[in-house]
Parts: sequence; C-alpha cells; structure tokens
Amino acid sequence: MNEKEELTPLEQDWRTRSLNAPSPVQQFGPCGRIMKNSAMVMQIQDPASQRLTWYKPPLAVLVIKKVRDSTVLSPFVQLVEWLIQEKHMVVWVESAVLDDPLLIQDKKFQNIKDKCVTFKDGRDDLTDRIDFIICLGGDGTLLYASLLFQQSVPPVMAFHLGSLGFLTPFQFQNFQDQVTNVLEGHAALTLRSRLRCIIVRKNYKDHKNDSDRNDLAECDSSGVNSINNSNALPSTNILVLNEVVIDRGPSPYLSNIDLFLDGRHITSVQGDGLIVSSPSGSTAYALAAGASMVHPSVPAIMITPICPHSLSFRPIVVPAGVELKISISPDSRNTSWVSFDGRNRQELLHGDSLRVTTSIYPVPSICSQDQISDWFDSLAECLHWNVRKRQKCLDELSDLTGSGSEDTLDELDSVNQI
Amino acid sequence: MNEKEELTPLEQDWRTRSLNAPSPVQQFGPCGRIMKNSAMVMQIQDPASQRLTWYKPPLAVLVIKKVRDSTVLSPFVQLVEWLIQEKHMVVWVESAVLDDPLLIQDKKFQNIKDKCVTFKDGRDDLTDRIDFIICLGGDGTLLYASLLFQQSVPPVMAFHLGSLGFLTPFQFQNFQDQVTNVLEGHAALTLRSRLRCIIVRKNYKDHKNDSDRNDLAECDSSGVNSINNSNALPSTNILVLNEVVIDRGPSPYLSNIDLFLDGRHITSVQGDGLIVSSPSGSTAYALAAGASMVHPSVPAIMITPICPHSLSFRPIVVPAGVELKISISPDSRNTSWVSFDGRNRQELLHGDSLRVTTSIYPVPSICSQDQISDWFDSLAECLHWNVRKRQKCLDELSDLTGSGSEDTLDELDSVNQI
Amino acid sequence: MNEKEELTPLEQDWRTRSLNAPSPVQQFGPCGRIMKNSAMVMQIQDPASQRLTWYKPPLAVLVIKKVRDSTVLSPFVQLVEWLIQEKHMVVWVESAVLDDPLLIQDKKFQNIKDKCVTFKDGRDDLTDRIDFIICLGGDGTLLYASLLFQQSVPPVMAFHLGSLGFLTPFQFQNFQDQVTNVLEGHAALTLRSRLRCIIVRKNYKDHKNDSDRNDLAECDSSGVNSINNSNALPSTNILVLNEVVIDRGPSPYLSNIDLFLDGRHITSVQGDGLIVSSPSGSTAYALAAGASMVHPSVPAIMITPICPHSLSFRPIVVPAGVELKISISPDSRNTSWVSFDGRNRQELLHGDSLRVTTSIYPVPSICSQDQISDWFDSLAECLHWNVRKRQKCLDELSDLTGSGSEDTLDELDSVNQI
Amino acid sequence: MNEKEELTPLEQDWRTRSLNAPSPVQQFGPCGRIMKNSAMVMQIQDPASQRLTWYKPPLAVLVIKKVRDSTVLSPFVQLVEWLIQEKHMVVWVESAVLDDPLLIQDKKFQNIKDKCVTFKDGRDDLTDRIDFIICLGGDGTLLYASLLFQQSVPPVMAFHLGSLGFLTPFQFQNFQDQVTNVLEGHAALTLRSRLRCIIVRKNYKDHKNDSDRNDLAECDSSGVNSINNSNALPSTNILVLNEVVIDRGPSPYLSNIDLFLDGRHITSVQGDGLIVSSPSGSTAYALAAGASMVHPSVPAIMITPICPHSLSFRPIVVPAGVELKISISPDSRNTSWVSFDGRNRQELLHGDSLRVTTSIYPVPSICSQDQISDWFDSLAECLHWNVRKRQKCLDELSDLTGSGSEDTLDELDSVNQI
Repeated sequence: MNEKEELTPLEQDWRTRSLNAPSPVQQFGPCGRIMKNSAMVMQIQDPASQRLTWYKPPLAVLVIKKVRDSTVLSPFVQLVEWLIQEKHMVVWVESAVLDDPLLIQDKKFQNIKDKCVTFKDGRDDLTDRIDFIICLGGDGTLLYASLLFQQSVPPVMAFHLGSLGFLTPFQFQNFQDQVTNVLEGHAALTLRSRLRCIIVRKNYKDHKNDSDRNDLAECDSSGVNSINNSNALPSTNILVLNEVVIDRGPSPYLSNIDLFLDGRHITSVQGDGLIVSSPSGSTAYALAAGASMVHPSVPAIMITPICPHSLSFRPIVVPAGVELKISISPDSRNTSWVSFDGRNRQELLHGDSLRVTTSIYPVPSICSQDQISDWFDSLAECLHWNVRKRQKCLDELSDLTGSGSEDTLDELDSVNQI
Repeated sequence: MNEKEELTPLEQDWRTRSLNAPSPVQQFGPCGRIMKNSAMVMQIQDPASQRLTWYKPPLAVLVIKKVRDSTVLSPFVQLVEWLIQEKHMVVWVESAVLDDPLLIQDKKFQNIKDKCVTFKDGRDDLTDRIDFIICLGGDGTLLYASLLFQQSVPPVMAFHLGSLGFLTPFQFQNFQDQVTNVLEGHAALTLRSRLRCIIVRKNYKDHKNDSDRNDLAECDSSGVNSINNSNALPSTNILVLNEVVIDRGPSPYLSNIDLFLDGRHITSVQGDGLIVSSPSGSTAYALAAGASMVHPSVPAIMITPICPHSLSFRPIVVPAGVELKISISPDSRNTSWVSFDGRNRQELLHGDSLRVTTSIYPVPSICSQDQISDWFDSLAECLHWNVRKRQKCLDELSDLTGSGSEDTLDELDSVNQI
Repeated sequence: MNEKEELTPLEQDWRTRSLNAPSPVQQFGPCGRIMKNSAMVMQIQDPASQRLTWYKPPLAVLVIKKVRDSTVLSPFVQLVEWLIQEKHMVVWVESAVLDDPLLIQDKKFQNIKDKCVTFKDGRDDLTDRIDFIICLGGDGTLLYASLLFQQSVPPVMAFHLGSLGFLTPFQFQNFQDQVTNVLEGHAALTLRSRLRCIIVRKNYKDHKNDSDRNDLAECDSSGVNSINNSNALPSTNILVLNEVVIDRGPSPYLSNIDLFLDGRHITSVQGDGLIVSSPSGSTAYALAAGASMVHPSVPAIMITPICPHSLSFRPIVVPAGVELKISISPDSRNTSWVSFDGRNRQELLHGDSLRVTTSIYPVPSICSQDQISDWFDSLAECLHWNVRKRQKCLDELSDLTGSGSEDTLDELDSVNQI
Repeated sequence: MNEKEELTPLEQDWRTRSLNAPSPVQQFGPCGRIMKNSAMVMQIQDPASQRLTWYKPPLAVLVIKKVRDSTVLSPFVQLVEWLIQEKHMVVWVESAVLDDPLLIQDKKFQNIKDKCVTFKDGRDDLTDRIDFIICLGGDGTLLYASLLFQQSVPPVMAFHLGSLGFLTPFQFQNFQDQVTNVLEGHAALTLRSRLRCIIVRKNYKDHKNDSDRNDLAECDSSGVNSINNSNALPSTNILVLNEVVIDRGPSPYLSNIDLFLDGRHITSVQGDGLIVSSPSGSTAYALAAGASMVHPSVPAIMITPICPHSLSFRPIVVPAGVELKISISPDSRNTSWVSFDGRNRQELLHGDSLRVTTSIYPVPSICSQDQISDWFDSLAECLHWNVRKRQKCLDELSDLTGSGSEDTLDELDSVNQI
C-alpha cells in the first residue's frame, strides 16, 4: 500500500518549484512584471524541506499525558524515568498529573516523582522554559500543548497509544530510539498553522479610545490567554490549532451571521453555524460538516458552513493571512456562541465581533516519517481513506454498473442487438 | 452586499503575517529551530500585494475573442480600432479570426484590418512577441490564452460580455478608461497557478535511455505543446489552467486508477474518474464533482474523485509543488482517458503514467478590483453564492425548524408544558 | 450490534398502520406467491387520483394567519369578510389574533369581528368543529394547523402572500374564485403524512405496570397533545408534519445516539444529532443536513444525521410505518434534546426513549394544480431547482470542461495531434 | 418551463400501476373526504408481512452461478448434486455454464451433468418453466436473473460466497437447511421493484400511426427483451433492477437532458448525466453519485444527477408509478448514451426519448432474515455503515471538538473565565 517508488534522476530533476510557495517567477512576457515592494518581500524556506535542528541541546522537556486513561500510566512512567535517568533531562509535568491516585500508588514512579518540575496550568508562565514537548495519548494532548503555549511553541513529539491519530504520528514501541533520534536533530517538521482569534466586545469597543491598544497585538505578556466575558476588560488573543466554531448554542433559532473578509462583506450565513478552521482542523469538525481535507502545509484558512440553508453554500478555502470578521447580523433574532478548539465557549452578542487570522506562531509538530507520509497514513487509519478491502461490495457494484458483461450475459447481448 | 468597512488603524495593525506565505517564524522555544538550507531559501513577495508594473511600455497586444458568437463582434471592432488609433499599439489577432464572414462584412473593420498582425495558431511562435493580452467574451478565451503561452504568459485583461465569469472580471462598458488604467500600471494581479502535465508512455520509457532527457524540462523550445500519441516520440509538457481529468472514457467499465504523491502510493481510485485541478479549476468541473472552492492565491493542488465507489473518498487539497503520478492499476480491466482543460483527449494505457505538478509559469490575470473582491464577486454571480433573496423560502424554513415560536404558538406551548 | 430487543406487547400494539408498498402482482412464476393474510390486506385508493370531495357542504372554516406580519392583515380582512358575507360561512379565528392592535384599528374589520367565532389555543377543543381550514402567509401556518389538529385534520387550503412556499401553493390574487372552486369540490389533495412521536420516560416506564396503557394509543381524548417533562405523568403523542430533531442542545459534547428500527439496533449515531422527517420535511431542515428531496406522496420516513462523525453515514429512507426508537447510548457522556417541528424542546435523558412512526392522520393539503406540479413548482421557487438562467456561468464552464473546442482551438488541436 | 405536453392515448394507456401510498384514513374533518373512484381502488397486502408460499411444490429450479470465478465451482457442484439427488428437483442451467473447462474436468459433476436441463440464453423462452431460482456468487447473478425474466420472476434465493452483498443475503454454509426451509415456505420476501424502460425512436415514432401499438404494452410475447437500434423496428420494454443511466458517453461535451414527469417538463439537467434508479439501485451507482439510501420496500423512483452543473440540483425521490420521459434538449450540442443495469448501451439521438416507469413485475427476493434486517446487514457489510470501531479516530475527534474538557484543561478553563 505504501510502496515507495524509486525516483529516477529524471524525475527528481522534474520538480521545478517548491512546495506551497508562491510563484518564483516575477516577469510576465517582455514587459510585465510584479511591482517591487521591498516592504512586502520576505525570505522563506521551502516548507517541504523543513527539518528540525537544535540551537543548543534541549534540556527541559514537558511531558503531557492524556488524562483519565489508565492505559497511559505505564508508558508515562517509563518515558519519564528514561528521560531523567538516561537522558538526564529536566522533566516538567502539570502538577495536577501528579495528584492522580493511580500514579501515587505506582511504586516505580515514587523514585522519580521528586525529580519532576511541576507547574500549575494557568498560573505559571512556561514561556522560554520548555525546550521540547512530548505528548502521550491522543490528539487532545496536542491541543492542550497548543493551549499552553500561546506564543512560540517548542517542538512537539506526539505518541499515540492506541491507533494513529491525525496529530499523533509516533507509536510508543521503542520510544527510546525515536526520542533519541529526534534529540539528535533527525526529524522532519510539519508547521501546523494556528488561527489567532479575538472577540471584540461592543462595550469595550465603545471605550477603546481611552484604553491601551497593545492588547490586540499578537503576544500578550502573560503567555496565557485570558478571554473574558466582562465588558470592561480588553479581550486578548486566543490561538486555536483546529478551529473556532460559531453556532446557535442552546438557542432554538438559527444563526444569522455576517462574514467579512479583509473588511469586505462576503456573505451572510444562515444555518446552524460556521466553522473557521486551520488545515489541521480540516480533518476534525469541518470534515463532519462536509469540508474537503486540506494538507497541514497548505497555507490556508477553511470556512465551512454547518447545515447551511442555501444549497449553494459550499465550503471555501482562502489564503492564510486574510482577516476574517464574524458578527451577528443586525436583523438576526438571536445571538451566537463561539468556542475555541472546543473550549472557552462564550456568547457573541449583537455588536460584538470575532476576528480571525493566521497566527505567526505555528505548532512545530515532529513527523514520524515526513509531512506527506504522516498525513496520508493518518487519513488511512482514521478515515479508512485508502483501505482496499472495504470496497469489496462496491467493487462488485463496479462490475455491475460498469457493464456486468459476464460471459453468459454477452451472449444475450448479441441477441438483443440484432 | 459589498459594503466595504473602514479599517481602523487598530485593525490594520493587527495583520501579522502575509497572505499565503509559510510561517515567517523559524524558531520554536528556546532551542528548536528550522535547519537552514540555503538552497531551499527563496525570496518572495507577499502575494496579497502583487501589483502589475511595466518594465517598458507595452506595445504588442494580442486580442482574443470568443468564437461563434456574433455579439462579440462589435466590441471586438471597437476595441481593436481604439487600441490602434488611440493607443498606437500593435494589435495581434489569430488569422482565423479575420476569416469570419461577419467580420469581413463589417465596414468599419475594413479600415483597420490591414493594420492587424496575424499569426497562425500552432504554427507561429508568439514567445517574447506579445506584451499584453486582452480577452473578450468568456472563460474559454482565458483558457485559450493559457494554451497559446506554454511558458511565460503576458499579463491578461479579460472582459466578460454577458455576465461576470470566474476568469473574466472586467465589464466592457468604458473599456477605454479601464485599459488605459491598466496600461498605466494601476492594477492588482492574481497569479493563477497552472498544472504542468506530462504523459510518460510505457513504450517511450522503455527507450528513454538512449534518447535525450531535456524534453522533460519545463520549457520546450517550441513554445507550443505537442503531446502526441505515437509511442516513439517523446512527450512534452502541457500546462493546464483549470484541470486535467482522467476518466473511463467510452468504456463501460469503471476506472481503477493508482495515485502516487511524491513517489508514494496514496490511494487507488475506483469510480468514474479523477480530477486534478488548480485552485482556478476548483470552481470548474471539480465543483460539480463535489470539491470545495479554493481561492486562486492558495498554493495548492486539488484532487477530486468523480463518483467514487467509496463513501470515504473526499476531495483532498495538497500543497502546490508536490508531484503526482497517476497510472492504470495493473489489475484494472480497462484503460483510462486523459484530457487537459477539456482538450487533447487521449488514452492512457496500462504502463503509461501521467505526471502532474505545479508549473512555474502562472497566468498573470489582471484584477478588476483586487484578488479577494474579484473572486467573491464571481462566486456570487456564477454560483449565486451570496444572494440573499434566493434564500427566502429557507428563511421561512428557518423560522420553522428553529422554533416557529410565533405568538399564537407560544400560548399553546405553555399549556403543553404543564 | 444487532441486539434484538424484546418487543413488549405495548410496543407491538403501537403499530397502527402497515408498511405500504404495493405490488399488485402476487404471483411469481408458476408456483410462488405471497401468502394470503387477510388481516394484512387493505383497500387503498391510488394516491395519484386523490381528489377532495365534500360529504356535506362545509360550514365552519378556520382561518389561520401569519402573526407579526402586517402585510397579512389586509388579505386576512378581505378573506374573512368575503367568507362571511358572500359565502355565509362560520369563520373561526384564534382569539389572540383578534387582539392584534393593528386589526383592532381596522375599521372594515370591526363590522365583521363579532361574527367570528373565537377559540383559545390549547384550551378549546376543535375536534369535529372545523370543516375547512384556510392558511394565510407562510409555511408556519400549515405547521400550526397541524399542531392544532392532532387527530383528523380538515382539508387545508394554504395561500402564500409573498412567494410560493413548500407548503403554501395558492396565490392570493382572485382568492374568491379559488376558494369557490375548492368549496365546490374541484381539487386534488396531497395527503402529507405526519410522524407520530412519543417520549417514553425511564421513570414513567418503571411504573407503567400499574398505570393505564391507553395513553400510548394514537388518539388521546383531548385532541391536544400534552407532552410533559414530569416523570410521573404518562406522555402522549405529538404529531409532527416536518420533523423531529434530536441534537446535543446546549451541551458542548457530541451526541451519542442509539437508533433502533422495529426493535433492531441499526446504528449508533455520533455527531451533532439526527433528524427524523416526513417527506414534507425532506425539503426543510433535513435538506440543510444533506438529505435528498422526497415527494410528499412517497410513503417513507427519512433519517438524516447532522454532521455525522463517520464519512459513511449517508441519509437513509425507510418505509412509512416502521417504528423507530431513539435513545441515548449508555456510554454517552451527555444527554440530548428533542424538538418537534421546531417546538416543545425538551431533554432526553439516559434511559428515556423517543418512539417515532407514521401517523394515520395525514394533513390533507389542497393542491393548487396537482401533486406533482405543486411540488416541482415549490422546488423551483424555493430552491431554484429548475432555473435555467442561473446556470449561465456553469454553461460556460460546460463549454470549457466538456471540450471548449471552439474554432480557433480546433486548429491548434490538429497541430497538436500530429 | 412548465410546458405541459399533450399525452397521447398511447402514453396514457402505458401507466399500468398506481402511485402507491397509503393513508388508510379517507375522511378529513366532519365534511371532507377522498372522492371514491372505484377504478382506482385496489387491495394490497401489507408489504411488511409479505411471506413466500408455494401454490404447489416447486419442481424446476434454475441455478445461476457467477462466471469466471473458480471459487464458485465447488459450491455449484455441491448444490446441484444435492438438489437433484436429495430434493429430486429438475435443475436448469444455462448451457454456456456447462462448457466451462473447469467444470468439465470435475469428476463429481460428470455424474449429474446429464440430469441438468440446459437452455440457451436469448434463444429459449423460460416463461412458466422455472419455479424457483438459486443464485450463487454475487449481486451480478441477481441482475442476470432479472434480465432472464422480463415478466413474472420466480422467487429468487441468492447466496453470496465471499461477503454479504446488497442483493445476496444468504451464506452458503449449511445451504441444505436453508434451501429446505425456503422450499417448505418459511421465508420473508422483499419485492424489489423494477423500472420498465423503453426507448421511443424518433424515426419509429414518425411511422407509428400505421404500426401496431401493442409493443408498448408491459409484456411482449417473447419473454425476452429485444431493444434494437434499427429505426424501423419497434422498441420493446426492458426491465432493470438497479438503474438506467443516461450519460454523455464518449462525447467530450456535457449532456443537456430534458426531464419530464407525467408529461410535465421538470428540469433540464446539465452535467455528466442522470441516473434513474429503483430503491435497490440506490445503493449502487446512485450512491456514488451522492444519493441517499432507499430501502427496497419504499415504492419510489430515485433521480440522481451525475456531476450536475448546478449546486442546487440534489437527488430527488418521486413516487413509484410516475412516468418519466427523458430526451436530449433541442439545443444540446451532443447526443447521450443509455445503459440498462450496465448493459445494452446505446445512443439516444435528438428526437428520441427514453420512458421509464415502475414495472408491475418485481423481483421476489427471498430474505435471509427479514426485509429490515437483511438491508441493514448489507449496509453494514458493504458500506461499513454501522461499524463502531472504524470511528475511533473520530471518537477522539468528538472529544476534541465537543469539549475536550479533560481534567487538566478544566482547571485552565476556570482560570480563563475569571
């Protein structure tokens, strides 16, 4: 299934441009060309060639484990023990993790418990303290890592414990070799873009002239987002890895949502809601709502309606970096609700607006193989996207609808055609 | 509908990264960063800021008009006359155009006919001779322009004559002002990426060791593609603007197609066929087959199955620049047929393969307004994507399914809840 | 997976109508035939030939008008005046309607107001008192009529005032002729099947042995449904015309719902919810969730998932008369919410179940033309299903993807093929 | 748009069965009721209670086996031997089957070969000669049985040999008990409705006044269909079990098809084609084109566009018994191609028309369990419709998008909300 073809030199030469970069050619015919604007020029590395390297050896490693799942306990203890004793790293864990009664009873863990550095989620600032993150257990652990690091995110290595997830490419068997390999800098990276979201409250907006403006900058000083519902306080950014969802919440009325793109009114969405997702999120909730699957290296934002009341409202994919503004239509009977990666659910009132754009801080997700293989493996595993045997009945169908011209039928045919 | 909101300074500041560029941040936590590989670094201009400029004043203008449509004649004559007499440009037209009996009868045109430079499509090489292209009539004219220029394409200004098309943003009224404006260099550009396709024939492959290899390079010397069916001759590239389609052709059997991406077997497609499209093509045939709509500035390739015999085979969007290989599955009962932007239809035999990647030569399509507005306007016009009045009945429905809590009903409710 | 539930006698009794299909041929080959079971044989009239007739001249007419819409006032007054003065009918109106301040100010209406018979919705029983119903204003009025008559429904003639609705085929102009025509018995009927729903509460179930069972019969004596949330009281039927929806309500967790059909576990639905709709409802909320459109004369029940978390869960259409049971999966983290034609929203707890089947009491909806024409006209009007001009851009597209073989291109082709 | 075609007497006669729907209630309110029309009343048996019985013991059994599949040989020999020796039945097989070299080499079969009655497909009339049909191997065998019996079809018992098919519910293990059981009359029946199709050629139509009309009747005397391409000869009916497909065939142009229903122009389809299917066919090609799945007992016809060039053209489900007429639009550039259950492919020219309605001769398909269980089992097996484990990744997703409120996250939440 995964047969890797040998690329002949011929074929290797054939690739003439990088993955997902804009056109390198700037001249069109003898006279036309793109206007130079030095402010808009930037240097980029071909995303397909992105590999992890370490500026200095990583020392502080944060281990995140799935909660409420006893099967994760033993791998967790093994991993932490190995990191401390073999790799001499400083292991950070969320303090609540150590309160787990099952973990407390684990004798092996008692010996290393005191060597772990703990922090309190939401109270302690991790900025610049963590060199490396290891996730154990499920896609939720990577979402949690994303939540913890609202600015620069250290490289993340994510192990699934059961079956492959969209965000967790590594299997735990022989984790030692794999972690060592990564620590030595042998790994491809997928930079998973995140969406930077902010709710601008009507009330706050009314007073913003006399308040400071830097709360809208990408980075706030705390390193922890603090979206709030009170009208008086400024909102701050929240970065999502999968999606921000606007829905009608508990209201029985349908949502009526205005969508603006770079300041332009694009459409009004009537239906159950709207999903704005990163490419990583295209295989999450957006998929259930009918979206196409977008590879995480495509620099794009996906806009997917939820049960739209117009047959012509297909999902759309727009370039990363555009700015979306979403607000309740003035004539809408009800408000909407917003949630960020399935969390922080809050009401969006008339006059409020949600702004979304691509963040400059992606999640650097370490690949098990490479950007392409990891993604298609997860599609196959999670969506049964490439599973031949599943198609047996439809193979049969193919015989039928295609022609079904089996021997005995051919004869009849020739009679019929006379 | 198109209300343009004033962006406050606050909002303008908020944008922190360019449209559709990979992440500008290269460092992740205190230690991690992307490995520098100077060979893979390149400079790009923010696509959102792409504007046309002229290196030197354009002189030679190619005018392409829709054929077999008498309504185009009068605008065509007006335009050509104006370009020659007022703008003193050299106007090129395809020689077959001048053979049109209706045009021959047009007295006004007789005066200027001799001043036009003609060329024979497929015989004369236009490379480096045309500075500027004007299309009149329909999306087909832009596809034709793409076909004529298989390498660098001069800037294209496309007028629709009836209603707005996906590829033809300008309306013909006051064309003088609009063309003048563009000639003075005031225009945004959408660089529409094209797909570079090549069919590698089994027979040719068998002999390729003793033949030259440069036919596989992006540019062949002729400037005109010459895909051929004969086994002995090398195939050359063909660049498509919308899509390349692989289908079962006249065969009653279903296609069984193997899809490889960067040398890796991704999936086997069983169904009526497969569409590989550029973002421009996402609103063409791919849309009918169920694809999402992708903005032309998103650097991506879209892969869409046609009536797939697996419920889990959704359309996928992969990064521009990957290399696709498509071939008939060894166990497939029948061959397939390939067509390029709806043309050059030919059979793909067992052992042959079709290679597709992003070309470095996009079509620089001049915007009427800007990249974003033009696209959403064409969605609204062509797909009725944003037409409020159309939703009236479903608005009504919204009242019903949402709640329908009309006055009289509320009363009943309260009774029911007792 | 296929657990076969024991049907209690209660549940077996609940089925009141047959699956309905209808091969008139009962013999297959020389020997085979369908077993005669006189208990299961019934006489039916060809639905396509269903026409309204009056057993005796209708006297009591109920007029239902859209609320909170001032444009309905004038037609309402005209209609009521004409019915009373010209047709000498007894006009019933909901008492709340007469409280409308705008109506009170209408001088013309003052003269006839006292001649109207009023009733209080939810308090007065209309059973056997109304011969004929006229609806004015929108699909919601027909849903309201359905709600008022939870058993036999008098023939309903529904006028749209703006544009044609799915349920409101008549236009108001020359209403006199049209109503007269219907009163004379010249009209085709569409019998819109309704779904009979009942919530069986776990707590009630526990005590049901010592309670009466006849509350589960199709007809309760009150003529008004009285679904209740209290655990002690028996639930009664509620008949819906469009759909019953089970969703996750305000809960952020997804629903996990078990679906049983005729006592057999069919599937577990994970997603935002599930829509069970009549054919009439197939063009309402179910359509937004991706269902096919089912003509109201097809005896079927449609089951449509809302954003299902499985790519293979398509909408399904099962025969009218089957019995569905829907309950929260034992392992589901959250409960669900149920609403009936968008109303009566209430929580479905673990252990509760929702039963749905086809009611024997359809809504006899009078056709403007006939069953087929009315339906396709509403599709065209409400969904733009058959609007040629809308397809212009895609017509253009058709030229392109199909072939685009325009004159000038043909020439090139022939060159290319050399 | 709504052009009403004059129905010729010929066409009016053609309808041989009613729309079937089934409200048993005929009275609406105190006065309204359905007009009695004794010509339109019929007796039907509740389809859900349809069980097979034998008028006299079946003697002649036709065994159909999958061709070109050596794994079917051994079961075939076992079955035939047992039927002859144990059950003393007369076994019919298609003569071509006995020519299979593998079968000829089978020594066991030599002993019974001479006891088989053979017939030549397309030459010998089987009408009234076969009491019972057994199919071995795949859904194609049932389609073949349908093709052989273009009028009344004897009861069919279909075994799958690999995995369960949509049309082949029985597994071969202990076939003796199962066949005995059926022969004793213990079996539920699914009456799979078929579509009766006829191509009316323009040329033939021009001359039909002077030709006989009875070729359009449901039954032709031969028992074998004989659709022909010659213009002079009258066409006859062909009955399909799954679907009739109209597509653009080898033409690169898209189809432009006019669809009429009961003489009324319903819509014009622009796209790759159109599928008209029975409920049985809803899980075949129509499913790949996006249709909902319709239970075979729902008396309906499904109309599904193939890659329609209009976002609003959803599949529709209309009542069984309506008459469809499909013809090439006068302004269509190309013709179309028609195929019947994947066979008999032929061109549909301008002026020709295809008529489709429900046949009165269904295929009586014997259930392994019952109508409902068999269907849902095949959905689960063939489409993985109800397979829990497949949803693991999306289960995980559900945790994430739903809330992901895992322990550690909850704490953060509470902080964030402050």
